[in-house]
Amino acid sequence: MSENAHIVSSYDRDLEAIQALIMKMGGLAEAAILDAAKSLERRDEELAEKVTRGDAAIDALEEQVNEECARLLALRQPQAGDLRTVLTVMKISSNLERVGDYAKNLAKRTSVLVQLQPIDGAGGAIRRMAKTVEGMLKDSLDAYIQRDAELAEDVRQRDHDVDQMYNALFREFLTFMMEDPRNITACMHLHFIAKNIERMGDHATSISEQVIYLATGEMPEDDRPRGGRLSVDMAEAPE
Amino acid sequence: MSENAHIVSSYDRDLEAIQALIMKMGGLAEAAILDAAKSLERRDEELAEKVTRGDAAIDALEEQVNEECARLLALRQPQAGDLRTVLTVMKISSNLERVGDYAKNLAKRTSVLVQLQPIDGAGGAIRRMAKTVEGMLKDSLDAYIQRDAELAEDVRQRDHDVDQMYNALFREFLTFMMEDPRNITACMHLHFIAKNIERMGDHATSISEQVIYLATGEMPEDDRPRGGRLSVDMAEAPE
Repeated sequence: MSENAHIVSSYDRDLEAIQALIMKMGGLAEAAILDAAKSLERRDEELAEKVTRGDAAIDALEEQVNEECARLLALRQPQAGDLRTVLTVMKISSNLERVGDYAKNLAKRTSVLVQLQPIDGAGGAIRRMAKTVEGMLKDSLDAYIQRDAELAEDVRQRDHDVDQMYNALFREFLTFMMEDPRNITACMHLHFIAKNIERMGDHATSISEQVIYLATGEMPEDDRPRGGRLSVDMAEAPE
Repeated sequence: MSENAHIVSSYDRDLEAIQALIMKMGGLAEAAILDAAKSLERRDEELAEKVTRGDAAIDALEEQVNEECARLLALRQPQAGDLRTVLTVMKISSNLERVGDYAKNLAKRTSVLVQLQPIDGAGGAIRRMAKTVEGMLKDSLDAYIQRDAELAEDVRQRDHDVDQMYNALFREFLTFMMEDPRNITACMHLHFIAKNIERMGDHATSISEQVIYLATGEMPEDDRPRGGRLSVDMAEAPE
């Protein structure tokens, strides 16, 4: 075996180990999204507490990914496509860490919301939105592993559905607030929750855009990958 | 001059060029924060429009920083501390890009808010909060250039002031909403604006934490650097 082949396969082994960490992070983040939404719908403080505590494991994995990537860069000095892959992996782990933060934030709000008058239908709507985003996240990571630009593009398209779900919820919460000022505090928390889930969708989209770039060498259309595009969601709000 | 010294100085020159880009990004981001807040207070749609358009320049700089860093990694293959510095620079530019996004988001909301009934005192309060965060951002970048852990720690501490300003504003907006449902839409926008400024403060804090790590090799206390810690700001909100 040539020295060169040896170096290449060391890089591959290292990268595979890092990718396994990413998949583990992804699994934890997906579970956190679903559990956080479930805790809200069932007003289950114990489950919310579990999600809140669980975020530390995702954070620790991100740190480990960063360390392993730095080690790989220093030791294997990958070039061109390999270098790009390592930098992409670091971005993906940062996306997943943020998703974990949002799930934790959602779970913390559950603990506040159980003290307040429930808002009709909110729990179910939030759960459906969370389920959609969880599916996007799962597929974006599958697309990464398979370098499947088509699946990644599909995730990108689904982000529009999430934006629509968010806009519909925003209008509903506004109506509840206008009807009865006693709903205002709960609705503001719910609104933040919906916004946080929408942002998780942005992170899944960002991962997908990075996959498309890795697979095709081109950025999709006019979007740039980033940790969550910020739209003025309320621009078309009533009044 | 030895071959080794030559390599070292090439790295230094490359890094300096990248750091100049970072400083340029920082200058644009600081101006965007202040201009966005000014556009809100003066209900100046033209200035808001300028901030919105200006974000593209910050995005382009981030892309350039990423490319230059990848090139530096591939070409100079920096080790240990130098490698860590390059990875930190990439994180800082990502923090600055996010700050630019938040400023743009703030400016876009200005265009919506000018259509609505003004909320007493909100513009001034937002401007003061923005000014505080702009100072934090400036100092975090100075701390980076000087590798000044003390200044970075000072920025970290000031983040608590921003959190307090945010909490005070949150309560005020809630009161306005409860008093008159016609204030609800404007207050929700203002609330998002306050939240976005608080998040910009988190990004300045994240930069400072990375500086502390670079300068001392240790992470400050129990905080980890990340793109914006998410707190449940509304947990102690009045019912």
